[in-house]
Amino acid sequence: MDRDLILLGHGSGGKLSHQLLDDIIIPALSGIPVSGQNDAAILAHAGGRLAFTTDSYVVDPIFFPGGDIGDLAVNGTVNDLAMVGAQPLALSVGLILEEGFSKMQLHRILLSMRKAADEAGVAIVTGDTKVVPRGKADQIFINTSGIGVIRHELEIAGCNAQAGDKILINGTIGDHGIAVMAAREGLALTTDVKSDTASLNTLVAEIMECAGPALHVLRDPTRGGVATTIKEIALQSEVTVTLCEEFLPLKAQVQGVCSLLGLDPLYVANEGKLLAFVAPDRAELVLERMRRHPQGSQSAIIGEVTAAGGSRVQMTTLVGGLRAVDMLSGEQLPRIC
Amino acid sequence: MDRDLILLGHGSGGKLSHQLLDDIIIPALSGIPVSGQNDAAILAHAGGRLAFTTDSYVVDPIFFPGGDIGDLAVNGTVNDLAMVGAQPLALSVGLILEEGFSKMQLHRILLSMRKAADEAGVAIVTGDTKVVPRGKADQIFINTSGIGVIRHELEIAGCNAQAGDKILINGTIGDHGIAVMAAREGLALTTDVKSDTASLNTLVAEIMECAGPALHVLRDPTRGGVATTIKEIALQSEVTVTLCEEFLPLKAQVQGVCSLLGLDPLYVANEGKLLAFVAPDRAELVLERMRRHPQGSQSAIIGEVTAAGGSRVQMTTLVGGLRAVDMLSGEQLPRIC
Repeated sequence: MDRDLILLGHGSGGKLSHQLLDDIIIPALSGIPVSGQNDAAILAHAGGRLAFTTDSYVVDPIFFPGGDIGDLAVNGTVNDLAMVGAQPLALSVGLILEEGFSKMQLHRILLSMRKAADEAGVAIVTGDTKVVPRGKADQIFINTSGIGVIRHELEIAGCNAQAGDKILINGTIGDHGIAVMAAREGLALTTDVKSDTASLNTLVAEIMECAGPALHVLRDPTRGGVATTIKEIALQSEVTVTLCEEFLPLKAQVQGVCSLLGLDPLYVANEGKLLAFVAPDRAELVLERMRRHPQGSQSAIIGEVTAAGGSRVQMTTLVGGLRAVDMLSGEQLPRIC
Repeated sequence: MDRDLILLGHGSGGKLSHQLLDDIIIPALSGIPVSGQNDAAILAHAGGRLAFTTDSYVVDPIFFPGGDIGDLAVNGTVNDLAMVGAQPLALSVGLILEEGFSKMQLHRILLSMRKAADEAGVAIVTGDTKVVPRGKADQIFINTSGIGVIRHELEIAGCNAQAGDKILINGTIGDHGIAVMAAREGLALTTDVKSDTASLNTLVAEIMECAGPALHVLRDPTRGGVATTIKEIALQSEVTVTLCEEFLPLKAQVQGVCSLLGLDPLYVANEGKLLAFVAPDRAELVLERMRRHPQGSQSAIIGEVTAAGGSRVQMTTLVGGLRAVDMLSGEQLPRIC
């Protein structure tokens, strides 16, 4: 293996992604330290704080049960804004099309983007289209960038997890990754798992209102899944997190496909889920509030910050053991988003 | 030719691009009318007006005389902000990498981005990296999006050209397109034409200060070249523009390669040029000011708005004729940016 070459795993969201970011990309581009990295950058500006984020989408296949590359791209960027507590203000759309791509499919994808944007209450205000010759891209890649307005004074950041915090999730894990994987592998007929792609900004608004300063961290467990995201937070906040396998919401269908394909649902991507770290005195109230929201009916407390220090994650398993949880290493499911 | 398929020409910046935008993309995504389309969207916000823009870069080859895909991506987005008179505040970077791409080349490109950003005085604050399997992309595609702050009350827009306006350009045309084309075709040794890729925000600041409300339109003639850009403005402002071939700044080398390849320099992409429409009473003063700027030493007045109405562009040629100038139709130079 030539160490100079980019590997698929560099796009996994896991360990190799972090190495590429920390060794090459961040030092070259910006110098932002690991502890300051969040789903969106926060900019000081005369009118208050702005959030700014970007994501490219290369999912394969481009249509899958529960969504397509279009609503995925809108929801993903809205969610990255929501994860720093920002209200989305505007989105941009950058299309890279392969020569020969179908205009009808493009139209279907664009309508899906518009619908998702309308549902999230955000306008698509600017865009760009490039076309490359056949064979130089795969059908369609979409970049969405977004600006949000931060209207609160809360400190919601990956480095802000505190000992005692309860960890809440708004529903079942792994749905998106398994839906895409099943569609790709032709398992679509054997399972009815749908992607959970959805915008979480209204759910976040409710959580913020209910939790106030008790809300310490918000992050959406996309590439790399819940395990990788929690490990990132443990590293940034330098805390020890203990998850409880018993409380992880998981559809039997997702469990089944994971077993079939040899995947661990804890590492499978989600696109309509968030993890909230909330101080213990408000956690139950926030949980109740989340359960009343359409995107949170199956919300659960799945673990807690058991100690300051350690920068590690462990999980009490169903059979009563204690298992170390690390980041995804390499690539489990390429082109999942 | 199947009319349902995307063609290379849909990415040309010319007629087919406009058709795709007007028929499919804009109606689906936003509904912004043609007259309101500019290089960046303008957002009202508590702290003043914000500009927001996005561009994807798929240039081939990724390294070319005078630049690479990295500084091109930074300068291009800075310029789109500058063209609405905005001071760049922050950039995002979205990378799509092909499996097997060289980390050393990636590093070189990132350093080039950082250098360009430093020169333009803008910070790269957020980013995203995706990797696709070998053969599913071509080395590296880069999306840059940008936020700018608008600190003036001027109305600078493509729909604001007025009868009598002089049309200024800050130097020679076609350099970027010919540098890339020469590198691609292996003509690099026979010509020393370099891309003009550069950030124009400081030049724009000088123009705005000197022209004040006499500055009506700013636009950078990238894909589709000067001809397509002027035609766009003539359509948006519903005016007749007359260019004068004699006054078009053009390097002999660029002229030579254009003759060799059968290209019209008026349609060749620029990446460090702007067109300014300025009321006649301030045009000479602005021209002098532009010539004192490092990016404007060869500035020239290349034409004027000869009438309200008409929505068309014509050019008095060197041999004394009058030629109609239309948008680029189809694709002259694919993957030029």
